[in-house]
Amino acid sequence: MAGAPGQESRRPDGAAEALRRLADGLDPAALGAELHAAIRELYPICRSITGDGLRQSLRILQRLAPLELHEVPTGTPVFDWVVPKEWNLRAARLVAPGGEVVADAARLNLHVVNYSAPFRGKVSRAELDAHLHSLPDQPGLVPYRTSYYREDWGFCLAHEVRARLPEGTYDVLVDTSLAPGALTYGELVVPGVQEDEVLVSTHCCHPSLANDNLAGMVVAATLAKLLGGVAPRYTYRFLFVPGTIGAITWLALNEARASRIAHGLVLACLGDAGRSRRGHAEIDRAVAHVLARSGADHAVRDFTPYGYDERQYCSPGFDLPVGALTRTPHGEYPEYHTSGDDPALVRPDRLVDSLRRCLETFEVLEGNRTWLNLSPKCEPQLGRRGLYGAVGGQSHAVASQLALLWVLNLSDGHHTLLDVAERSAGLLAIQAARSDGQSS
Amino acid sequence: MAGAPGQESRRPDGAAEALRRLADGLDPAALGAELHAAIRELYPICRSITGDGLRQSLRILQRLAPLELHEVPTGTPVFDWVVPKEWNLRAARLVAPGGEVVADAARLNLHVVNYSAPFRGKVSRAELDAHLHSLPDQPGLVPYRTSYYREDWGFCLAHEVRARLPEGTYDVLVDTSLAPGALTYGELVVPGVQEDEVLVSTHCCHPSLANDNLAGMVVAATLAKLLGGVAPRYTYRFLFVPGTIGAITWLALNEARASRIAHGLVLACLGDAGRSRRGHAEIDRAVAHVLARSGADHAVRDFTPYGYDERQYCSPGFDLPVGALTRTPHGEYPEYHTSGDDPALVRPDRLVDSLRRCLETFEVLEGNRTWLNLSPKCEPQLGRRGLYGAVGGQSHAVASQLALLWVLNLSDGHHTLLDVAERSAGLLAIQAARSDGQSS
Amino acid sequence: MAGAPGQESRRPDGAAEALRRLADGLDPAALGAELHAAIRELYPICRSITGDGLRQSLRILQRLAPLELHEVPTGTPVFDWVVPKEWNLRAARLVAPGGEVVADAARLNLHVVNYSAPFRGKVSRAELDAHLHSLPDQPGLVPYRTSYYREDWGFCLAHEVRARLPEGTYDVLVDTSLAPGALTYGELVVPGVQEDEVLVSTHCCHPSLANDNLAGMVVAATLAKLLGGVAPRYTYRFLFVPGTIGAITWLALNEARASRIAHGLVLACLGDAGRSRRGHAEIDRAVAHVLARSGADHAVRDFTPYGYDERQYCSPGFDLPVGALTRTPHGEYPEYHTSGDDPALVRPDRLVDSLRRCLETFEVLEGNRTWLNLSPKCEPQLGRRGLYGAVGGQSHAVASQLALLWVLNLSDGHHTLLDVAERSAGLLAIQAARSDGQSS
Repeated sequence: MAGAPGQESRRPDGAAEALRRLADGLDPAALGAELHAAIRELYPICRSITGDGLRQSLRILQRLAPLELHEVPTGTPVFDWVVPKEWNLRAARLVAPGGEVVADAARLNLHVVNYSAPFRGKVSRAELDAHLHSLPDQPGLVPYRTSYYREDWGFCLAHEVRARLPEGTYDVLVDTSLAPGALTYGELVVPGVQEDEVLVSTHCCHPSLANDNLAGMVVAATLAKLLGGVAPRYTYRFLFVPGTIGAITWLALNEARASRIAHGLVLACLGDAGRSRRGHAEIDRAVAHVLARSGADHAVRDFTPYGYDERQYCSPGFDLPVGALTRTPHGEYPEYHTSGDDPALVRPDRLVDSLRRCLETFEVLEGNRTWLNLSPKCEPQLGRRGLYGAVGGQSHAVASQLALLWVLNLSDGHHTLLDVAERSAGLLAIQAARSDGQSS
Repeated sequence: MAGAPGQESRRPDGAAEALRRLADGLDPAALGAELHAAIRELYPICRSITGDGLRQSLRILQRLAPLELHEVPTGTPVFDWVVPKEWNLRAARLVAPGGEVVADAARLNLHVVNYSAPFRGKVSRAELDAHLHSLPDQPGLVPYRTSYYREDWGFCLAHEVRARLPEGTYDVLVDTSLAPGALTYGELVVPGVQEDEVLVSTHCCHPSLANDNLAGMVVAATLAKLLGGVAPRYTYRFLFVPGTIGAITWLALNEARASRIAHGLVLACLGDAGRSRRGHAEIDRAVAHVLARSGADHAVRDFTPYGYDERQYCSPGFDLPVGALTRTPHGEYPEYHTSGDDPALVRPDRLVDSLRRCLETFEVLEGNRTWLNLSPKCEPQLGRRGLYGAVGGQSHAVASQLALLWVLNLSDGHHTLLDVAERSAGLLAIQAARSDGQSS
Repeated sequence: MAGAPGQESRRPDGAAEALRRLADGLDPAALGAELHAAIRELYPICRSITGDGLRQSLRILQRLAPLELHEVPTGTPVFDWVVPKEWNLRAARLVAPGGEVVADAARLNLHVVNYSAPFRGKVSRAELDAHLHSLPDQPGLVPYRTSYYREDWGFCLAHEVRARLPEGTYDVLVDTSLAPGALTYGELVVPGVQEDEVLVSTHCCHPSLANDNLAGMVVAATLAKLLGGVAPRYTYRFLFVPGTIGAITWLALNEARASRIAHGLVLACLGDAGRSRRGHAEIDRAVAHVLARSGADHAVRDFTPYGYDERQYCSPGFDLPVGALTRTPHGEYPEYHTSGDDPALVRPDRLVDSLRRCLETFEVLEGNRTWLNLSPKCEPQLGRRGLYGAVGGQSHAVASQLALLWVLNLSDGHHTLLDVAERSAGLLAIQAARSDGQSS
């Protein structure tokens, strides 16, 4: 009695149902172990916004999903920016006057300021100090610092180590290269029936930091693999890009494609939810719906231009409906951008939970249609179709009948199923609470 | 200094004022007794969605107001439905092996499942059980059950009686008829100056149930009688229809007329308030306004497609601004759809109160105009017209002057009086609270 | 990287910056003393809606700012009103049977009902009583009462004095004149680049009442003087008018000009905030923004047609975006319209604070532009312009960088700076709170 305006010969919601089955069929233990193993393998590699560490990491992700690697040459203009020189690290070591190695990138690559220019020499304690970074409030942790756009070198170390560095001459080795090369990014497209795209973007430029953002990288790659087994309605585009410059580069080289992005999610740290600049785009509502139904503690936050790469996708020249999904937002857990963000911080079950919420969000997007009730005048007679209880007079309808009534009532060509779900949610919950006391 | 756009020669708010006088002049004791007597007379009759019990009940209502009876033949197609066979009950009795009459429609017509198909014979205790209905949680009450659209027979009885029915052979008599006939409904139109209609619809298909909905039937009939003495602006149409199928039948046979319905109310159980599907239609706001001013405890609920006949009037093919007015909503009082819903549950003063709120709602609708201040530039000088205190400088204006200022300020051709009332309500209340301390 | 649509050759926000400097550079002690001295000088003068007291007061204000005086002849029709006869007081005295002078306008001009008609004679205690006004709840205070539109005479006195007036014959002298003359008002225009006007209106008809409204008069005059030193974008029009009839008179004689009023404020009692009839006009939002940032306790109230002259500016024939700014609203402090409202009630620091909030409001209006980011695709590279920290990876951005990101993100030709401020306010506050714990 109801049909889609612009009907398709194939079962229209096959993909939504397949995604639901995928989400329900996840094996948390096995999948969680697999994702965590990938994180542990990726952790020691020294990634940056360019260079071999980034390439090597993307190649490891290729074992999870067949993403394609792109290389954009140094010097390529991308909007207001230019693709920078490629950075590679061979070694970085700081030796104290007494011979103690107080920082060594081979031990923990956070010890070297990312994108440090090459330097080799002896410096006094005072000269050295301008090149040191530490956290007085978290004296045991090594911070993560970068210097992408000013050529300089530096070391990061625990404040308690820095505090007891003696006077004297220090031996500095920063054996890096900054030279013409390329910016590397990964991309994977799962074609759908429609050309409209769902963008999933994740940054992959952080060195030894696990939650931010090895977690996002392995979840995104696994999502890409799983979607390959579904014939979706939308085309899904997965981007594995260095933060900021990678998103800017992709947008600059794919400007015509951007207008096809119907919905988008930036994945990072993998948990709570944040809105797109538009605030009430379908993707914002779909994520909110999934999180509300998950029963998990969560918060939906307004867009701010100081987040991850949604900053670029939501810049006023694009204003794409791209939100962010994170478990704990950046800067709000003490290990953020420090050596404390190691694989032990990342829990396998949380990775699977994040992945599941993504699949459910895609399910909502895939299944969200505007239906037209072809029998709109009064209710259709559900009873003779076996869709309504034969015995009348009981106090409470069962949830499935209420759902039918809501869908029929609001299928007027103006309400999407997500609209119906939002409007009926509170009342269905009340009804569900009541029907506990239902008589037989 | 103010005039109606499109002025009428007659005093435009005569009907609103007449309704206010009617509401203020009600004699609660006498009217309550009269309404309750009608309920007691109607109570024993076995009503259903068709049949002689329904006809007889409508004829009793004709003594209150001159409603017209319509008969729609069995088999008439009405949208997705068909007018069913007519059902009549002669007798229904269930006799236990020991000879005890455990259920008898002559004693309480709820004992027979409404629309039971004829049956006569002997059945075992086990066979019988599939035809019995009771309430384990309310073991002393007989439930109300129907089987309109599946031909079957059944008995309803108190669970405590059912629980002690012995094994053995039961004698079943269901002497009913299910045969071509008609669906009967009542209709009364009070013509107004305008063709736009106010619809008042009430269901009258329930057998021995007092609050649901003999209360609605007698209040609606009395409203119809009282409105006959007022020359209203709107045309008022009262429908006394069997639930669901009656509303569907009327809409199917009067489809062209439906578009004239400017405001509508479904009356049932007579108390609290519920919104139309549109949510903020004028009728929704008028009812909310009346209840807020009544000082009575009340709640305004959002529309749900699992209510009374507003389900049909608000189906997407019509989407009429028809809300529901009930005292305790269906399913939320323990006697709902049981033998506990008898005349003792219905209090005469509550019937009069409900009737009064309906009259006040009509008063708001009748008087709700959009005025145009013909002296819109600055305030008119109220003082020289005797409408403002001559001595200036006092702290607080009296309420009547504030009301004048609000009406003058918002009479810009865009605000209705209901808009003015809603916007000024909070501030007038604050002002009223303050003026207690006013000096002389 | 950003430019104004419709660029101007002069620095566009010079006026906003000058106003900010003015606000920051106020000397509270010196300015407060100066404003308070003016109030003390004005206090004893017997003002009314016409007459020499009003003229004399406006001339004193001319020493603060060069306002122009206008005289509108008695009998001039102004919309629904007529400019009244001019009233002047020479003396008013009430002598008790024993010779005691119980009321004398020379001692306190509130003692005579403002606009009292002339009368001289002897009256009994009983006859006198109809001409007396007092406050039983505030027995020590003399009320302020007027009789503008009914020719009568009267005296106001403390209730404790009235209560012990003996029987006998009273000697009444009301030596006033009510004769053809003029209504006087003051006006000062500070021309701006644009013809759109900011209206600042204040009533100046109250006799010996300090907060209501000598405070408003001296603050408005000082604002006018200060604005004369700024070359503003908007044209500022200051009106010093007798309440109600003065605003009506100005609107009637300047009807064509009213449409140029882009924003307006009625100043009185000088503190809290009230909205215009429109509710969310730019002036309403600008005042709310300034008060929110001031940290001061304040309330934004909805428009009511029982306020000051915003009643006239917001009448439906004009509906101008004119709000009111008051410190304690009329009628909400016990001294309101009594002899208790004397210069001691008015605190110099509060006058300066009110003046400062007005300057800040003008700053917001002057600086509120809709900018267009000319580099809208992704973020511009702030780092190479020295606008972004060179070391990356830190948890928190500094406020100035966040402000830049917000402005760039929302400068899409649709959002004003006030929109940006409102949208980012909460998030910037959170960010500010967090950055306390920022590491070095």
